[in-house]
Amino acid sequence: MSWQSQLVAQLDETKQAAFFLATLSREKKDESLRFLANLLRRKKLEILEVNRKDVAKASASGYQAAFIDRLTLTEERVEKMAGACEDVADLPDPVGQVTWRTIRPNGLEIHRVRVPIGVIAIIYESRPDVTIEAAILCLKAGNCAVLRGGKEAIFSNRLLVELIKQALLETGIPGASVNLLASGGRQAVPFLLKQTRFIDLVIPRGGESLITTIVKHSRIPVIKHYKGVCHTYVDAEADINMALKVTFNAKVQRPGTCNATETLLVHRSIAPKFLPLMAEKFRLAGVEMRGCPETCKLIPDAIPARSSDWGQEYLALIIAIRVVNSLSEAIEHITHFGTGHSEAIITNNQEAAREFLKKVDAACVYHNASTRFTDGGQFGLGAEIGISTDRIHARGPMGLEELTTYKYLIYGQGQVRS
Amino acid sequence: MSWQSQLVAQLDETKQAAFFLATLSREKKDESLRFLANLLRRKKLEILEVNRKDVAKASASGYQAAFIDRLTLTEERVEKMAGACEDVADLPDPVGQVTWRTIRPNGLEIHRVRVPIGVIAIIYESRPDVTIEAAILCLKAGNCAVLRGGKEAIFSNRLLVELIKQALLETGIPGASVNLLASGGRQAVPFLLKQTRFIDLVIPRGGESLITTIVKHSRIPVIKHYKGVCHTYVDAEADINMALKVTFNAKVQRPGTCNATETLLVHRSIAPKFLPLMAEKFRLAGVEMRGCPETCKLIPDAIPARSSDWGQEYLALIIAIRVVNSLSEAIEHITHFGTGHSEAIITNNQEAAREFLKKVDAACVYHNASTRFTDGGQFGLGAEIGISTDRIHARGPMGLEELTTYKYLIYGQGQVRS
Repeated sequence: MSWQSQLVAQLDETKQAAFFLATLSREKKDESLRFLANLLRRKKLEILEVNRKDVAKASASGYQAAFIDRLTLTEERVEKMAGACEDVADLPDPVGQVTWRTIRPNGLEIHRVRVPIGVIAIIYESRPDVTIEAAILCLKAGNCAVLRGGKEAIFSNRLLVELIKQALLETGIPGASVNLLASGGRQAVPFLLKQTRFIDLVIPRGGESLITTIVKHSRIPVIKHYKGVCHTYVDAEADINMALKVTFNAKVQRPGTCNATETLLVHRSIAPKFLPLMAEKFRLAGVEMRGCPETCKLIPDAIPARSSDWGQEYLALIIAIRVVNSLSEAIEHITHFGTGHSEAIITNNQEAAREFLKKVDAACVYHNASTRFTDGGQFGLGAEIGISTDRIHARGPMGLEELTTYKYLIYGQGQVRS
Repeated sequence: MSWQSQLVAQLDETKQAAFFLATLSREKKDESLRFLANLLRRKKLEILEVNRKDVAKASASGYQAAFIDRLTLTEERVEKMAGACEDVADLPDPVGQVTWRTIRPNGLEIHRVRVPIGVIAIIYESRPDVTIEAAILCLKAGNCAVLRGGKEAIFSNRLLVELIKQALLETGIPGASVNLLASGGRQAVPFLLKQTRFIDLVIPRGGESLITTIVKHSRIPVIKHYKGVCHTYVDAEADINMALKVTFNAKVQRPGTCNATETLLVHRSIAPKFLPLMAEKFRLAGVEMRGCPETCKLIPDAIPARSSDWGQEYLALIIAIRVVNSLSEAIEHITHFGTGHSEAIITNNQEAAREFLKKVDAACVYHNASTRFTDGGQFGLGAEIGISTDRIHARGPMGLEELTTYKYLIYGQGQVRS
């Protein structure tokens, strides 16, 4: 069987399962999630053993440390996966929630009700934890998931999806509700992206080249989870201690994440006081500073920034720093270089904050808080499948509700239109 | 200047305008809409004159009557356009509405606020009324609109967009907020669909070939407004008089619309009583009936249906009729042949109704009412840009709220993540 036929056969059985999943009770879904939690715990050693094969192969191929880290499972990480299954089981079921209702003058009663989207394809890099995360969130929202993970995680993903299927079957849910699409090489993704009959939504999580390929080839709606070039702007009227604390957290607390701040913008009038203090803290934490000429005057050990530093996602202990003449200039910089992810202003001036929050076009805009809070858990959404950098359907942290669509149910007593 | 450069220049100025429009006050937008209403009335004769040129050309080219009808403007239709501008001005402004808020245990206050999508491209056929409708709905929701209407309406569209721009400028809004993209021939649409830098959303309204082209070429998110193959199912336990009245309305009241019923499904046990009565009414209204073998036994003048009749959108006084053995068979038929638009069940059996409403996967599912009600106005949404047959972002009637996205505003007092 060709890889194309293999993929279509898998998609076809998943599509069949979607019809069943759409009307599944909360109890069944939660039972399955709890079964999976325990199964992951029971099979921990087996999972770790299989994962070592992936890691060994990737290490031998010379992948970088950060890549290997994301690929590696530990006892603690498997336990975290199991815990996530239980957490998702505890969340309310979005399916069936009535989000709007009205009774029209003619007596028609209209309800807008959340329903599953259908079949969701998740395309991601070599992170086995995403396999579990994506599958359980899709399942809880009544969706089927077809997973295309990075090839370097293939042994881990195969076993994990096998365990998911086992948990599904054990509780009377079709195993095909979750499928790992492993056939085919580089051409498989463009091929999948044309299967509009089988897939309702594509969620890619990854870097620039992955996203570009997907947008170019997809005939299926896509919600991109793309990079975050986040800015923190320290306004003329900022509380300096707060600005130091918040900016430090936004950069240093976990620099490898998409909601970490990459560029610091500072108002000219506060820069001479603020920047030397900020530099001291950054220096101690080993943060490399790349500054505009103004910044370099105030921070002697800052490296002159190149034009490519503006708008760059370092994901590392590096920060670009620019002195601006006004709030408007800060907003313009963000409009030009931001990726619509998370942006922050630090100020005690309410008028400046209002303007920043109104004019900055991003999923999350902060006043006096760290950009690091952009996260489904931190927002109280319970869990997230990722952070959408798109504007259509879902923006920012994507939780269970964002994994649903809706339909209108209309109750009549024989009404006709005149 | 090449057509490509012309289009890019127009898109670029519209994108600039979008930044301005995003934070525009309700007052300004409404003022502009009311100005446009009066302008349309004042220029009525000029509009009709220009439209006659389009109509004469299309008639000479041998277009069908239905096409010419949609292209033609009358005094009444221009007045309807003007009235629509006023109606939209009266609607509440969706921008700035807070749709969710929470205060987290750490004191962070999170608001989810509606904001405009940005630049919306509407691609449609030769219907000058859509030019006004699309522009004013986009404007009210703070969006810029780039319009690509059918080439047969070019004279009408040019004048209408000129009047829109005049109304915008008169009230201090950039004229480029609405642009007619007329350059380029057949290649222009695929070219536009790659301009991800300038366009945030594409809404195509039209037939199969238009939709197929767009889905194939677009790198921009698309919300399809595609055909409606709607079914009415008369259950075993239907009230026969209600079933006659509702089915007749769903087919006959305005057969050329996407929410008109195209196929009638009838439960075997009620068919001998119901179908002859239904046929009598259809016969008097000149409706052509195309039936399954069972139907043809009960309606002697029904034409035997071919397999291509199931799932066909007639948009005319033709109905396909099939006798089914059960509710499940009706649902299966709809699952297979429906386009996810509007589906109805007529029954007094609450259990059957619940199952139908739960299992049928369509934007609008009716119990004891005509499918003809699928409409923004009928739903109380005020106005609609069309009816989405997609599942992502918007489904069913698309009003002002569906023309917005959202952002999160987060208010802190110096919170950092630990």
